[in-house]
Amino acid sequence: MLFYDCSTAPNPRRARMFIAEKGLQIETRDISIAKGEQLGDAFKAVNPNATLPVLVTDEGTVLAENLGIAAYLETRFPAPPLMGRTPDEKGLVLMWNSIVEHQGGLPIAETLRNTHPAFANRAIPGPENHAQIPELAQRGAARVGHFFDLLETRLAESPYLAGPEFTLADITAFVFVDFARVIKRRIPQENSATLAWFETVAARASAQL
Amino acid sequence: MLFYDCSTAPNPRRARMFIAEKGLQIETRDISIAKGEQLGDAFKAVNPNATLPVLVTDEGTVLAENLGIAAYLETRFPAPPLMGRTPDEKGLVLMWNSIVEHQGGLPIAETLRNTHPAFANRAIPGPENHAQIPELAQRGAARVGHFFDLLETRLAESPYLAGPEFTLADITAFVFVDFARVIKRRIPQENSATLAWFETVAARASAQL
Repeated sequence: MLFYDCSTAPNPRRARMFIAEKGLQIETRDISIAKGEQLGDAFKAVNPNATLPVLVTDEGTVLAENLGIAAYLETRFPAPPLMGRTPDEKGLVLMWNSIVEHQGGLPIAETLRNTHPAFANRAIPGPENHAQIPELAQRGAARVGHFFDLLETRLAESPYLAGPEFTLADITAFVFVDFARVIKRRIPQENSATLAWFETVAARASAQL
Repeated sequence: MLFYDCSTAPNPRRARMFIAEKGLQIETRDISIAKGEQLGDAFKAVNPNATLPVLVTDEGTVLAENLGIAAYLETRFPAPPLMGRTPDEKGLVLMWNSIVEHQGGLPIAETLRNTHPAFANRAIPGPENHAQIPELAQRGAARVGHFFDLLETRLAESPYLAGPEFTLADITAFVFVDFARVIKRRIPQENSATLAWFETVAARASAQL
């Protein structure tokens, strides 16, 4: 296997944490988004969509997208399970992963990419350029507040997002919550359940990477 | 099981097709988004996020989000497989599903919800109101063109998105491509591989629902 990573970006970090939680050592190449290496011919020959992370399997399949990589690794290396055991658990993991991607990951990315000068004309990842839309950043900032509410409601009733066990959904949420520092957003002080969950996840070895 | 559907919206249609492809008959309640029933107290007691589709399992778990419902049904009713058999296939299905959601579903929804008067102040699904952003609709329309290119490139080399078999990724793509009619977008006439794929999927019994 060969893993294409980027040490500074949140989506590759999700895959990196998943790989570490599985206890796997995978040969890794770091692609610098800061230098625009993901848009170079060498990387686009691997992934024409110019997104990271990417995992090339031993069978030669090129898997982009976190869920593609996670589904492959979970099936090939089932222990420890990170995507649930029973049908209900598997449903809850992908449900919470989707909710976090749409309600958290997207608005955080929208806020950053539509304001920060580093993303001028790069408001969306991928090979096409798109101008920034300042109104979208404002909307994103409002939605991030709702995302923190949503996490607190869930984590006040459940130790982890999908239930009693740490799963992929927690990796996704942890990485996005941590990344929200780039838009100067932190877990609100009164959100005690989320703060406790964050501290627990942040202490895992996989979170140090 | 109990399935909360909405006959007019694309996301519930994805779950409806998945259920039909599994050959399942599930008790169904239709929630009218046109009448705003998803925002009423009765439905929000089921799903506080006010999104459709929802599947309540026999164990009483409330699963929202298409991927949550699909993961549950695929595990409980493995035949016919709609999310791949081998690790590589499972990876490719979720990879293509993610690509289609982000590159197709999102820009189509953005174009519709940020222009159509029916979505004034409802630019994002869920319990919170958000104003329309006309620039986002323009960007969405441009991205839909890129999505059609992306589909054509893939379907010129593979009969279905994730490989030789029909899967969840094709359901997602078919429903969004078909729904693009609401923003007056059709598969370009020269995209012969996509047109052939669309006709094949449209002929399935599950596509008639």
